[in-house]
Amino acid sequence: MSLRLGVIGAGAIGKEHIRRCTQVLQGATVVAVSDINLDNARAAVNALGLKAEVYADGQDVIKAQDVDALIVTSWDPTHEAFTLGAIEAGKPVFCEKPLAMTAEGCRRIVDAEMKAGRRLVQVGFMRPYDEGYQALKGVIDSGEIGAPLMLHCAHRNPEVGDNYTTDMAITSTLIHELDVLRWLLNDDYASVQVRFPRATSNTHARLKDPQIVMLETRKGTLIDVEIFVNCRYGYDIQCEVVGETGIARLPEPSSVQMRKAAKLATTILTDWKDRFIKAYDVELQAFINDVKAGELRGPSAWDGFAASVAADACLKAQESGALETISLPERPAFYLR
Amino acid sequence: MSLRLGVIGAGAIGKEHIRRCTQVLQGATVVAVSDINLDNARAAVNALGLKAEVYADGQDVIKAQDVDALIVTSWDPTHEAFTLGAIEAGKPVFCEKPLAMTAEGCRRIVDAEMKAGRRLVQVGFMRPYDEGYQALKGVIDSGEIGAPLMLHCAHRNPEVGDNYTTDMAITSTLIHELDVLRWLLNDDYASVQVRFPRATSNTHARLKDPQIVMLETRKGTLIDVEIFVNCRYGYDIQCEVVGETGIARLPEPSSVQMRKAAKLATTILTDWKDRFIKAYDVELQAFINDVKAGELRGPSAWDGFAASVAADACLKAQESGALETISLPERPAFYLR
Amino acid sequence: MSLRLGVIGAGAIGKEHIRRCTQVLQGATVVAVSDINLDNARAAVNALGLKAEVYADGQDVIKAQDVDALIVTSWDPTHEAFTLGAIEAGKPVFCEKPLAMTAEGCRRIVDAEMKAGRRLVQVGFMRPYDEGYQALKGVIDSGEIGAPLMLHCAHRNPEVGDNYTTDMAITSTLIHELDVLRWLLNDDYASVQVRFPRATSNTHARLKDPQIVMLETRKGTLIDVEIFVNCRYGYDIQCEVVGETGIARLPEPSSVQMRKAAKLATTILTDWKDRFIKAYDVELQAFINDVKAGELRGPSAWDGFAASVAADACLKAQESGALETISLPERPAFYLR
Amino acid sequence: MSLRLGVIGAGAIGKEHIRRCTQVLQGATVVAVSDINLDNARAAVNALGLKAEVYADGQDVIKAQDVDALIVTSWDPTHEAFTLGAIEAGKPVFCEKPLAMTAEGCRRIVDAEMKAGRRLVQVGFMRPYDEGYQALKGVIDSGEIGAPLMLHCAHRNPEVGDNYTTDMAITSTLIHELDVLRWLLNDDYASVQVRFPRATSNTHARLKDPQIVMLETRKGTLIDVEIFVNCRYGYDIQCEVVGETGIARLPEPSSVQMRKAAKLATTILTDWKDRFIKAYDVELQAFINDVKAGELRGPSAWDGFAASVAADACLKAQESGALETISLPERPAFYLR
Repeated sequence: MSLRLGVIGAGAIGKEHIRRCTQVLQGATVVAVSDINLDNARAAVNALGLKAEVYADGQDVIKAQDVDALIVTSWDPTHEAFTLGAIEAGKPVFCEKPLAMTAEGCRRIVDAEMKAGRRLVQVGFMRPYDEGYQALKGVIDSGEIGAPLMLHCAHRNPEVGDNYTTDMAITSTLIHELDVLRWLLNDDYASVQVRFPRATSNTHARLKDPQIVMLETRKGTLIDVEIFVNCRYGYDIQCEVVGETGIARLPEPSSVQMRKAAKLATTILTDWKDRFIKAYDVELQAFINDVKAGELRGPSAWDGFAASVAADACLKAQESGALETISLPERPAFYLR
Repeated sequence: MSLRLGVIGAGAIGKEHIRRCTQVLQGATVVAVSDINLDNARAAVNALGLKAEVYADGQDVIKAQDVDALIVTSWDPTHEAFTLGAIEAGKPVFCEKPLAMTAEGCRRIVDAEMKAGRRLVQVGFMRPYDEGYQALKGVIDSGEIGAPLMLHCAHRNPEVGDNYTTDMAITSTLIHELDVLRWLLNDDYASVQVRFPRATSNTHARLKDPQIVMLETRKGTLIDVEIFVNCRYGYDIQCEVVGETGIARLPEPSSVQMRKAAKLATTILTDWKDRFIKAYDVELQAFINDVKAGELRGPSAWDGFAASVAADACLKAQESGALETISLPERPAFYLR
Repeated sequence: MSLRLGVIGAGAIGKEHIRRCTQVLQGATVVAVSDINLDNARAAVNALGLKAEVYADGQDVIKAQDVDALIVTSWDPTHEAFTLGAIEAGKPVFCEKPLAMTAEGCRRIVDAEMKAGRRLVQVGFMRPYDEGYQALKGVIDSGEIGAPLMLHCAHRNPEVGDNYTTDMAITSTLIHELDVLRWLLNDDYASVQVRFPRATSNTHARLKDPQIVMLETRKGTLIDVEIFVNCRYGYDIQCEVVGETGIARLPEPSSVQMRKAAKLATTILTDWKDRFIKAYDVELQAFINDVKAGELRGPSAWDGFAASVAADACLKAQESGALETISLPERPAFYLR
Repeated sequence: MSLRLGVIGAGAIGKEHIRRCTQVLQGATVVAVSDINLDNARAAVNALGLKAEVYADGQDVIKAQDVDALIVTSWDPTHEAFTLGAIEAGKPVFCEKPLAMTAEGCRRIVDAEMKAGRRLVQVGFMRPYDEGYQALKGVIDSGEIGAPLMLHCAHRNPEVGDNYTTDMAITSTLIHELDVLRWLLNDDYASVQVRFPRATSNTHARLKDPQIVMLETRKGTLIDVEIFVNCRYGYDIQCEVVGETGIARLPEPSSVQMRKAAKLATTILTDWKDRFIKAYDVELQAFINDVKAGELRGPSAWDGFAASVAADACLKAQESGALETISLPERPAFYLR
């Protein structure tokens, strides 16, 4: 039985997920699509020759009788309302990040979901579905390197647009580490400090680039994340876990090894879309499978809330220069993994 | 519209392909399964809760009205007859290697398919669907390293069973290189020579191990393939293409990099099934998609024939110790890529 | 003409330098050796069959007519006096680190040398003579990676003795980075902060291990150095320089690459003595050559002073947990490179 | 006591060895230099400010009372006579390769040396003194990879001059592998076959490039050596030893690892002189030390003879295309290591 999906928001990511569900993934059919610009919704449907209803209002998608589950890929500020709507309708919802614009908004979703009595929300954090991170977690969990003491991470982009500002290093970039590292370590953040090295000459006045974010977890693991979004050379995600007895490092993306022109080289990706392209497929397939199996197991509303709380503290640390506490409430039993 | 598949042969590979079509791939449904042991067919169907008819005779699967296309995973000696049956029925067929037990058998399939007037056969050579080989071919085809002059390849298994004999190094092991290297170079083999180095002490009387097979292509590219099936350390596939201006090497499988116990190490696979596991998915998805699109583009009956002709010459070279000619007829226009 | 050397202190390092000068290096002869235990001096001389005078008092070595230059490898607290003695005698002196027990002591040597009017002191910092660091500096100085913005470094030992305490992570371990990174960047330190991650279970009460030291240079380059002296897996020195347009990384020591037991591995050294063994030869050969050429060019008394000032601030930062200023006076023109 | 060296031949290599003995190595002094062009000898001496006698005739250097040992770096065809002269004079001689122009010439030197009753000759094969090859031999000899079954080697130059012809791939290029691989395996060659792949377009009529030389040893180890002297990308020496239980590979030269312009790269050398530059120092230092210790242990006249015999067979195999036997007489007890 194919899972009938309603997609709210037919922009770039929405269209991408519709294509994914239709041409790549197994076990689901897009039966409804909405966009505040109805033509967008129609175009998305027609482009793939889908037999799907189009709506101007996402709430109508939620309510549609033939829709079993939702994918929310609309304008960020609308995520919270649509996700709450799906919860109210008792329908599972895959919501692209951010779950809400504020930690409070995320908390409202958490509360609504707990009130509903079962997990209905998966947040669109894809990295836990990346094969490399999974292999890395496998090594950590095996105990091969002992307890993780430090993480050295980097998130580098070749360049960003002029409207990318200092705070976005947290909200658009670090947000992925904030999610995946909690999952990797099975731990929560306790504090954060941000340091600004000498700035690259390839940035502008409103963007301090690079930055180093130092997070400490409750267990005391110290994480440094270099964020460098004008690094020029490539899109490069690094994660090295220093344990008591060994070090494990996130695999580099596979590449042909070349000997040419006095260099022994492999290729570094330059487009972020290529780096986790398979993880997008896997996360959405997992959502489909988990909905059908009756139990969501991916990044939860609580994970979205935790990332949001941590991001708020990071932003504060960017401003203060001081060590800022990250005060995440105790995880409710409801969300215990 | 889901492609309705009939699977002939419900042994290990058959069951694996049924699972694949049902749980992993998109756009196909297994509607019929046969096995000479009817219980096997039933078990395969029930294990996945499929609504599929079971048959004792594969020819009945071919004839079944609701079957659009076939997957042949039966006992090797029956491949030829089932594939010919599918051609006769005008139904596309994915046949596991070997296509037939002899080059003559492969030729009969080629002739039947040409007579049918359109491509109906895909042989189960999965390596051209491997991401690494595709990247390597991309580099060659780009001209980055100039014309390929030499290939240094290795096909190593940690160990083989006692019933694995010298000739199987060609028919079970090298057969994959014989297929993928023709595709990689877009060339055909002209001659072959086999050399036997000092044998490992980890072999037995009926298996000379390792072997080095030296193939020359029509364009003069010289290929050495080391076959070493008791290498102990892992399942390791190497392919290095030496071109006029540079060298390109097949990517190593992705792995966490570890620093531990005085070693900086990545993991080498030990189970061959893990090495091309994704390629199996991709080849069968491609078959499904190509059938639906009306044009098969994967490894053809001609490719199966060519591999078989080359393998026969390799076997002769194992015996003679001399340089043996590989006489493949000119490729019919029908099979021009 | 062979340079006639007097060696003050015939302990482990002293004997090693005597052997080096006698059997490995070119252009020098050890003609005098002292040790507070005269038997040690005699044993060192006899072991190599040297025709060298032995003395109980290092000051007598300094004064000996036939001694052209000194090597000070005595007990740390005596370094300052012997070095000052050599300066007073107008004889070039290679002094093992530390130059003096305090920054003030180093300053006295600087002042004495400036008063002498020419460079007479080389401090035994060997890393600038390491081939890998020289290659790394070559890349930085070439401008290939643009201005250095961040350095990610690690200094890891497999284990340390029970008498190794938290402060020694600075004075015995980090001291090498404090020297080599100034040289590498051609910059001076402005501030330092120390963070203590979760401690490894393989340490003891008086040693917080690992530590992360964050140094900021005057130009704003932000350096993080992980010090982890019970890392178990090996002796491992890492240095990654993140520049505006690229990243350069200190070469790993050369090693045979092995495929064995399901691992693709190179060897990590476990004994620190092997890591910079060639650099010790090169630094001392450079001293000999430079003395003969009439101009010392290696690590200077000022470099020793600068490292000492920085180390003091690091120790303070270990205690305070705060950002500590590193106040090095302006470099006198005398020491301008 | 400094070893007093006489250098016969003051061309490029001669001058290089004079500089080496004078400025780099320990324990020797060049006291005599000859060249058929006396001005060359004078210039070499004056350039370094040596107090050395100059001679027009190398035989006079051999006879000079104050000369303890010889270095022969004259025109290739004169090597044999000067080496024989040194043997006759009972003086140790380091002779650059080739030891003689023919195997017979080498044999004459072997016979003369045996008649002299002690080893007096070291041939200038430097690779056994390379750190990488020594590490590789260490792994083989340790038994870690079991008995060596196959070697995959490559000797690649970026380009060669127009006067480099097919046979020089053996006499100028492969000659180094012919020496070092015997030493590495502690084995002798039994046969050789040469295959010519498709030629690179970057060669000329008198040079078939690349070539693959397949050597078989007496123990049955099968060695393939790719010789590619117009490979364009760099000077690259590869050696992979496939043993019964694992594979060991010659280390790549150490290099800074760079992330830049979408590449993760290390540098490949392009100038052959840089590849074994340290090995030249080590081989000559070893000669000096061994002469002083009274026992030569480096590449012997027998090794020179063995390489010459093997090279002759390789040349024959280039012509015949057939498997050619390599008939080295049994090694005299005199040369047993």
